[in-house]
Amino acid sequence: MQAKPLRFITFEGSEGAGKSTQIRRLETRLLSLGEPVLTIREPGGTPLGERLRRLLKESAPEPALSPESELFLFLASRAQLVRETIRPALARDCWVLSDRFSDSTLAYQGGGRGFSPVLLRSLNELACAGLSPGMTFILDLPLSEAAARLARRKRESAQGDRIEQEPPEFFERVRSSYHDLARLEPDRIRLIDGGRPEDEVAEGIWEAVSHVFGL
Amino acid sequence: MQAKPLRFITFEGSEGAGKSTQIRRLETRLLSLGEPVLTIREPGGTPLGERLRRLLKESAPEPALSPESELFLFLASRAQLVRETIRPALARDCWVLSDRFSDSTLAYQGGGRGFSPVLLRSLNELACAGLSPGMTFILDLPLSEAAARLARRKRESAQGDRIEQEPPEFFERVRSSYHDLARLEPDRIRLIDGGRPEDEVAEGIWEAVSHVFGL
Repeated sequence: MQAKPLRFITFEGSEGAGKSTQIRRLETRLLSLGEPVLTIREPGGTPLGERLRRLLKESAPEPALSPESELFLFLASRAQLVRETIRPALARDCWVLSDRFSDSTLAYQGGGRGFSPVLLRSLNELACAGLSPGMTFILDLPLSEAAARLARRKRESAQGDRIEQEPPEFFERVRSSYHDLARLEPDRIRLIDGGRPEDEVAEGIWEAVSHVFGL
Repeated sequence: MQAKPLRFITFEGSEGAGKSTQIRRLETRLLSLGEPVLTIREPGGTPLGERLRRLLKESAPEPALSPESELFLFLASRAQLVRETIRPALARDCWVLSDRFSDSTLAYQGGGRGFSPVLLRSLNELACAGLSPGMTFILDLPLSEAAARLARRKRESAQGDRIEQEPPEFFERVRSSYHDLARLEPDRIRLIDGGRPEDEVAEGIWEAVSHVFGL
């Protein structure tokens, strides 16, 4: 019998692709079955992580955060999250749903910033102490659609954060990295069309989760 | 003709060994010769670094900062310091004196926390983009003497910081790592007896600096 994957599910993709919505929907569905669920986000999820999140999100810091510092701050937040939050939750048989995790580093710092994937994988290994998600959904969206959704969101609330100020080419590279990751690890990673209606996306995710975890 | 080392001098050693005093004395001496000098500290030295310094120094955070997060935060601060402060200063022919730098990671995270020196050297390389101090003074002090000096300092000011709360064995390992580093790189690193009178230590440092840099 094959071992079931870890009950640690991560959601990846561009801002505006619907990660938070789909996480809430999966959480609700699991809770309705009486399953314990912990929902977290990256960077963040611990007192340290939330402080680093504010640092990382700030628009237009002067002078600009170096790509290396940015990388190390994401890793610091992740290392703390794994040890303080994710592992203890998994140890008490809780589901963990995370808005971003190690694949974001490969897509944004690798594809986006140009750091070598080999380097990033070894840094992720150090930060995660070998912990890898049991299942990952990448919510994929064409750049123009993601930008339109973000523009709507910005009109409704605050201005964009630091990373949202990157040029379109940056996000093209990020998206292309996500596609590569999905091809490299088809067992763990599902590439989902985030442009479909919310209900359809939620149904697709639920089918995959209930099948893989035997719910 | 041998190239002169970079005018980037770092001071290392335990808290209480006299780093700040000796940095001030060297700074004064260089300034009196009309040399431009920038004095910095680690972690810190940039707006980002000073915010990370507060995070790293806080006593008894609950729950404890993981060793990996600690390591990544020091590296994030260093990466920013190199790019935002040290390199531009060296480029305009300014001396840079730093209270701690990459050797602290080897001593505290290597000797103290047990991370592999090979790993730490490659992380330092990434954080420093190849920049290495031209000269390094390790102010060495027996543990008991360093502890006594720190106890006096604490009575006079605030309580100790997070790392000062480590047990004596931790600081024994740190000190022993510093000794190893001095043996490994005798050209760059001078191990100085920090227990000698302040004037003597300052004179020894000045002799070495003026000799090496031809002042």
